[in-house]
Amino acid sequence: MTTDLLVHRDDLDFLLYDMLDSEDLARRPRYADHGRETFDAAIDAAHRLAGEYFAPHNRLSDENEPRFDGKTVKTLPAVGAAVRAFAKGGFLAATHDYELGGMQLPVTISQSCLALFRAANVGSSAYCFLTAANANLIRAFGSEDQKRRFLPSLLDGRWLGTMALTEPEAGSSVPDLRTTATPLPDGRYAIKGQKIFISGGDHDISENIVHLVLARMAGAPAGAKGLSLFIVPKRRVDAEGAAGESNDVALAGLIHKMGYRGTTSTLLAFGENDACIGELVGAPGQGLRCMFHMMNEARIGVGMGATMLAYTGYRHALAYARERRQGRLPGNADPASPPVAIAEHADVRRMLLTQKCYVEGALSLCLYAARLADDEKTHPDASQREEAALLLPLLIPIVKSWPARYGLAANDLAIQVHGGYGYTREYPVEQFYRDNRLNALHEGTHGIQALDLLNRKVGMKDGQPLARLHARVLATAEQARASGDPGLAARAAELEHAWQALRETTEVLRAATLADPVQGSANAAYYLDLFGHHVIAWLWLWQAVTAKAQLPARPHLEGFYRGKLSACDWFFQTELALAAPVHTLLRGVERHALRTEIDWL
Amino acid sequence: MTTDLLVHRDDLDFLLYDMLDSEDLARRPRYADHGRETFDAAIDAAHRLAGEYFAPHNRLSDENEPRFDGKTVKTLPAVGAAVRAFAKGGFLAATHDYELGGMQLPVTISQSCLALFRAANVGSSAYCFLTAANANLIRAFGSEDQKRRFLPSLLDGRWLGTMALTEPEAGSSVPDLRTTATPLPDGRYAIKGQKIFISGGDHDISENIVHLVLARMAGAPAGAKGLSLFIVPKRRVDAEGAAGESNDVALAGLIHKMGYRGTTSTLLAFGENDACIGELVGAPGQGLRCMFHMMNEARIGVGMGATMLAYTGYRHALAYARERRQGRLPGNADPASPPVAIAEHADVRRMLLTQKCYVEGALSLCLYAARLADDEKTHPDASQREEAALLLPLLIPIVKSWPARYGLAANDLAIQVHGGYGYTREYPVEQFYRDNRLNALHEGTHGIQALDLLNRKVGMKDGQPLARLHARVLATAEQARASGDPGLAARAAELEHAWQALRETTEVLRAATLADPVQGSANAAYYLDLFGHHVIAWLWLWQAVTAKAQLPARPHLEGFYRGKLSACDWFFQTELALAAPVHTLLRGVERHALRTEIDWL
Repeated sequence: MTTDLLVHRDDLDFLLYDMLDSEDLARRPRYADHGRETFDAAIDAAHRLAGEYFAPHNRLSDENEPRFDGKTVKTLPAVGAAVRAFAKGGFLAATHDYELGGMQLPVTISQSCLALFRAANVGSSAYCFLTAANANLIRAFGSEDQKRRFLPSLLDGRWLGTMALTEPEAGSSVPDLRTTATPLPDGRYAIKGQKIFISGGDHDISENIVHLVLARMAGAPAGAKGLSLFIVPKRRVDAEGAAGESNDVALAGLIHKMGYRGTTSTLLAFGENDACIGELVGAPGQGLRCMFHMMNEARIGVGMGATMLAYTGYRHALAYARERRQGRLPGNADPASPPVAIAEHADVRRMLLTQKCYVEGALSLCLYAARLADDEKTHPDASQREEAALLLPLLIPIVKSWPARYGLAANDLAIQVHGGYGYTREYPVEQFYRDNRLNALHEGTHGIQALDLLNRKVGMKDGQPLARLHARVLATAEQARASGDPGLAARAAELEHAWQALRETTEVLRAATLADPVQGSANAAYYLDLFGHHVIAWLWLWQAVTAKAQLPARPHLEGFYRGKLSACDWFFQTELALAAPVHTLLRGVERHALRTEIDWL
Repeated sequence: MTTDLLVHRDDLDFLLYDMLDSEDLARRPRYADHGRETFDAAIDAAHRLAGEYFAPHNRLSDENEPRFDGKTVKTLPAVGAAVRAFAKGGFLAATHDYELGGMQLPVTISQSCLALFRAANVGSSAYCFLTAANANLIRAFGSEDQKRRFLPSLLDGRWLGTMALTEPEAGSSVPDLRTTATPLPDGRYAIKGQKIFISGGDHDISENIVHLVLARMAGAPAGAKGLSLFIVPKRRVDAEGAAGESNDVALAGLIHKMGYRGTTSTLLAFGENDACIGELVGAPGQGLRCMFHMMNEARIGVGMGATMLAYTGYRHALAYARERRQGRLPGNADPASPPVAIAEHADVRRMLLTQKCYVEGALSLCLYAARLADDEKTHPDASQREEAALLLPLLIPIVKSWPARYGLAANDLAIQVHGGYGYTREYPVEQFYRDNRLNALHEGTHGIQALDLLNRKVGMKDGQPLARLHARVLATAEQARASGDPGLAARAAELEHAWQALRETTEVLRAATLADPVQGSANAAYYLDLFGHHVIAWLWLWQAVTAKAQLPARPHLEGFYRGKLSACDWFFQTELALAAPVHTLLRGVERHALRTEIDWL
């Protein structure tokens, strides 16, 4: 596979530098050593490692799931090699301080690097990302002693990490978690309970596995407030940070999935023999708050994963459609004439263009969210930091769900472009599709994201975040008008009109939800989807304005820029225009589905 | 698994008898021996066999694909047992004459029986359906000698059949097929060429495999007109109809699929050693015409397969949502209160109701198509036979594509209802989803169906079929109004309005397509989808009118009937209403996707 199939570098450069002006990040003190050259070098390195260590065993991992041999969970040797190459490349600590051995990269650039690993092999890269998230959490909330003992081994990949929240009876309903933590005389805790769907929960890749476990202390209140966070290693870690004896964390079962098969998914039993010891991280009762600290980045990660599976699927479909010859164009009745490349057929072109809209739109969304994460932390202007801190949480449900939904739709189209071949495991697109189906489920299902958006985020802080986002949308529309291009001006008017409608629909729904919360939950899913299309339409107009501005100066990229303008048009004419009646549906505040009784179904 | 998960028998009864009045079929001379009792007995038998012989190994087949052991393709013993039980139950010959050992059942009833096998196990039932189709073709076009030698063994399941059209370089483009047939002195033909994606192409289930092969005679014209149809058995068949020596049909490769794994899919090499002999079926150059004779039934079969995978998925999701407890309803902040069944949550209810709309709508469509197939052949009134012969071909692209698309969407929702568990192979819904993805591809992709509808079917015979269908739609609207129910009257008005819009959109598109065929192919996909929704909306109103009429007389089914009324409302309020802007899109006759050059993508 050529690494060109992982991402279109012209596009990544365009989004990072032309649209989001990421070079500007290097003007911030924390990134003073950086510049486009070092950013590009990091991305190049990721591109190379992803192509060399991750892509080659993507199918192999799918066909050879991790299996339990009676003692340990065996993974393919290539998986361990990939994880070690990732760690050695410095990507586990990409955003960390230099002193911690990190590259001190902005989130925007770090996410661009990670995107390439996701495109190459989501299954293997998940071990890396879980470990990075685990280390981030310990860095943020751990004691100095915990950081000293756990971080070095996690950040160099000798140990890997997991997040252990879900239990067999409590998935979406986190407050119902039942794993217990009983204080021990030495200040540590005896952990007891079962956790399910724990990715990377057992394997033979690393010498230790560090679980971050949500559990309830004896006597803690019911619900979310009673949950605390614990470090629970597979092998106990001594005062010097060395891994020793077993910590009574047992594999209770392997979970076999539709896709994402390279990542082992486990049912774990903690403390079956009453010998599982955990250390509290952060304050008692703050477990969920700690987890939420990481949630934004985790959800950007899921959005990026969904995006890149769709992105590489699109690149494969495009390459196939240029090569595969079949049929003739309408009007040519001569069966002896040679067949044309299928990309010449109108319907195939439509499927390719639609994929382009989805995947490049989704990538712009994820990178924009990453940029907000950077701005929140490092923008030199306090008011901009504050604004980013308002915008990012509002957009998180979109980042988590839109790429998962439309990325999957893109993968579906990539299969369709391949015809019958796309359904076979001889081609990679069916795996991308299977892998991507997970993203609507983990880290909060679509339903959970929808409730988060409608019941919390759009009403947050008197609706300020939404007002600020709207202002940014209007600013882009203004730029489109200022470009002097009549097509862009027309799109600007459509976008303004659509956003006005979105604001009004939001008002209606919010009022109805405050009056009766059930009305919110009955309408949230359609709202989430509608909101997402309005955000992506804005980002497409932004891309189009950027392309238009760059076009005169870079004639060698003219086709690329025209593609951006064309995709923007297509998104507005199809996706945004077709979403219009959803406003009417939502403003009716229909609770029809609930009026249909369960026994009628 | 309870067989209740295969189909809701109240629903099947409702569609067959209350909506479609299938008992009326028994008044036709051919079905004089039949009545509701024998129809039900056949369906009961299918239900029982499907539950006993097909459902139990559905997952096992998925996890143990057919494999080549160097000599033959090995399948699970349960597959062969299921096929034999199907044959022994008489279902291979369900519609055939009594004299041929058939049950002489109407297509409507036969398809209802087959639906149950599809719901239980599409992989194993495919062997049966291919054989039945193969036998139907030989019966329709074979010589008396061929019928005598091949039919008995095919109809009792001792031999199985295939359809061998596709070649590695010619799938959607059938006219480009290159397999050759060279006349031999004895009137038979030497066959040479490769065929791909041949389902059931090699296995150890039966003592012989009868391939029906499209091939081109030496000197025949290029294109479709040069294709003829040949019987090419794996083992040669002598004058007495006994299978003997090998016929030089070699397995050139097994194809590994995303789903439908229980059906072996093969690459076959005919005549590698110049020793492959075929017999012509039908006249030279009539190969495609013969195949098309079977195409309607084959496409109803694909629609039914897509429907039933979605149907059983819905039944599983419903059962799960009633049992699984998670979270609390909005307004209940007490974490100590017990969790509710997830079907109580508004968004889960929405996902269930939407599935119901898709699967019961799709089933009504497939059964209606089957009824048209019956009416075409056996309606006592010649004008009704003629009308059925007009309506069925028009609806075929919808029958083939709508269940494939929205059945897959239903399967997607069934996974989502199951949450993380739905993504695991410990639950069946992910397999239904993978299996169903094939249906958008085989027997003509969505793209091919779209072209068939817009470029051929709606313009056929001066648009008569469409006008007749529209008249039937208006008749249902009239009945809805006559019911005296204001809700149904409102739906009737919406349906009439929507169909008026569809007629106008069709006019615009047809004119544009005649002026420039490329405009047709650029818009056909959206048109196909829109047309399908208009048909399904009609069938839902028909169901609602029927339910309303039955309700007073059968109070024990009140919940069931209310569910039908509710699903009709939901389909109109969401699916039909949300499709409205597609008219605007299509009337713009946008060829945007084609104006986007390949190099811009």
